[in-house]
Amino acid sequence: MSDIVENRLERLRKRMTQTNTDLVAIGPGSHMQWLLGLNPHGDERPVMAIVTANHAGVLMPLLNAEASRAQCSIVPFYEWSDAEGPLGALTKLLSDANAKRPGLNIVLDEMMRTDFSFLLLDQLDAPTHRFTLDTVGLLRSEKDAQERQLLKDCALLNDAAFERAFDALRTGMTELEVRDIIIEHYLENGAEPAFCIVAFGKNSAYPHHHTSADTLQPDTAVLIDAGCRLRGYPSDMTRCAWYGDTPQDQFRKIADIVEKAVQFAESAALPGTLCSDVDKAARTVIEDAGYGKEFLHRTGHGLGVDVHEPPYIAANYPEPLRVGNVFSIEPGIYLNEEFGIRLEDVAYLQPDGVEILSEMPRTVRQLSVKA
Amino acid sequence: MSDIVENRLERLRKRMTQTNTDLVAIGPGSHMQWLLGLNPHGDERPVMAIVTANHAGVLMPLLNAEASRAQCSIVPFYEWSDAEGPLGALTKLLSDANAKRPGLNIVLDEMMRTDFSFLLLDQLDAPTHRFTLDTVGLLRSEKDAQERQLLKDCALLNDAAFERAFDALRTGMTELEVRDIIIEHYLENGAEPAFCIVAFGKNSAYPHHHTSADTLQPDTAVLIDAGCRLRGYPSDMTRCAWYGDTPQDQFRKIADIVEKAVQFAESAALPGTLCSDVDKAARTVIEDAGYGKEFLHRTGHGLGVDVHEPPYIAANYPEPLRVGNVFSIEPGIYLNEEFGIRLEDVAYLQPDGVEILSEMPRTVRQLSVKA
Repeated sequence: MSDIVENRLERLRKRMTQTNTDLVAIGPGSHMQWLLGLNPHGDERPVMAIVTANHAGVLMPLLNAEASRAQCSIVPFYEWSDAEGPLGALTKLLSDANAKRPGLNIVLDEMMRTDFSFLLLDQLDAPTHRFTLDTVGLLRSEKDAQERQLLKDCALLNDAAFERAFDALRTGMTELEVRDIIIEHYLENGAEPAFCIVAFGKNSAYPHHHTSADTLQPDTAVLIDAGCRLRGYPSDMTRCAWYGDTPQDQFRKIADIVEKAVQFAESAALPGTLCSDVDKAARTVIEDAGYGKEFLHRTGHGLGVDVHEPPYIAANYPEPLRVGNVFSIEPGIYLNEEFGIRLEDVAYLQPDGVEILSEMPRTVRQLSVKA
Repeated sequence: MSDIVENRLERLRKRMTQTNTDLVAIGPGSHMQWLLGLNPHGDERPVMAIVTANHAGVLMPLLNAEASRAQCSIVPFYEWSDAEGPLGALTKLLSDANAKRPGLNIVLDEMMRTDFSFLLLDQLDAPTHRFTLDTVGLLRSEKDAQERQLLKDCALLNDAAFERAFDALRTGMTELEVRDIIIEHYLENGAEPAFCIVAFGKNSAYPHHHTSADTLQPDTAVLIDAGCRLRGYPSDMTRCAWYGDTPQDQFRKIADIVEKAVQFAESAALPGTLCSDVDKAARTVIEDAGYGKEFLHRTGHGLGVDVHEPPYIAANYPEPLRVGNVFSIEPGIYLNEEFGIRLEDVAYLQPDGVEILSEMPRTVRQLSVKA
């Protein structure tokens, strides 16, 4: 772990030089997990990692110092007790980091609590701030070979969970029962459940449907969107099926459009392509088919330590894709009161284009009714 | 629910007038849950409730609008799609709220993500900001009779879980097995587990010990600190016992000091007393006994929708207690490599002093060894 932390601190400092950044401040959460391997107890007590060219240290409540020390021994902690409050320790940290001069260019963790951010801002002299997009965010988005393997392992485990769930479908089962099968598979294989949407019929027309006690009936759409976390890295996949012996023309037609949208987005995704153009590739397919208004969301999101992180495959995200980016491609069409179809894969960007991490075919299957 | 929301909005507006506050901005989380009954899907998409004298509205990602509408129908949503981004909808909301004039005094949700806060701050003309301490935080800390009852119900459920756990202790059991008994009791009774620390022997010397596979042996300290959530409100209690047929003098001595500290803090806690003075009452007992350095944390914290919320019973929190405050009293003494004792109750502040919500005696029991 120490080697990884030293390597990441070195990459961050290089990037700070390139972007004229004097100080980076990171709160508890995924940025801290990625940078320092540190996942401190999170409550209202301020915790913050500060990195400058010459120093790195972590403001740390005394109460959690011992447990945190076991996770990260490479940077000094600036400990504070409930009685003292955090200000003295923060002042010492900023002094050691040579951060008391005016006009610093700082980067704030966009996910950090607002009061933690202002605790820092109020101690600095006329800083200018921005968020982590071109520093920590950018570095996190360029996955190395080890991270790619962790994501791949998690995707394959998810494939198996989905196979088990689709195999188990029977008339009368509830969405919650299907979810339990998936979660059980995760737990049996050492993974933590991250999220699981199971939607039957018109429930599938809500992209963030809450899995319910509704039961499966013949001639129904089934949508499953689920993921788990294995050794710190997540999976995320969506597959759809038609449960019933009678094919349904409109369902098949929509499935074909969504599949085509996935394929166009995959083909567009090359190093240097703007994320917004990948979104456009999927969106144009769906708009041309007359369903632009029924594609309610962006085409995808990055994933790594977080299930949602940069790069976002969205119209308002005109950043270029880079080798090592990992992101979902998940267009969907949602027909209110009828059904929705979303097909989602996670891609690793190789120099010559996308590598899809899961191996379960994206095919929208027709499943025979089982009693 | 609508009545509760209208009442809370009215109380907030009254408090805004008293504190010369023009605008309150609340992110997803416990403040929003308390004020609007709204608990939206939380991700990087900005969600924010804005309240001014003449208007209230919620900035809301289109993707989650339908599910959120089912929770809260009383305030308008300002919806934005992934393609549009949130700025247009926020501008409209601020315009409807008459919030475009310069020099507003605003209150920010201290728990809100930093990027959400700056999305707002960057749209306002020279605002001054503070956090929710004397507005939403203060109102949340004054629990009404219904909230008191919900907290009481949850405390009694927790009492029963602890009885079951202490009854079950056997030589060779792991901390994790004890935790499972507690969690099972929560789930069987319709509550969600919130947290559960089980610590044997020297593990109890870490206030935030991670429950482990360590086994129970005769003549060992046992500390359990656990709580659940029932109908939205939490419990939180700590009890200690000596597992063994041979009394241990030092353990008994420390237990008596901690019990005395609880009693002094309880007696000090009256409406109008400063929280810091309640902390001092407990701390003085422990300092006078020579263990000041081994009392590693504040005396307590408020609880309500959050397990930790104002008022904090701490040296650096010189705010007066008010009738309706609910807070823990939980002094402890931690002897490294030996054991720790913490005794924690949750108190509701009546006009004449504290009412302890749990009914399980605080007595540090001696439990006979069972094979």
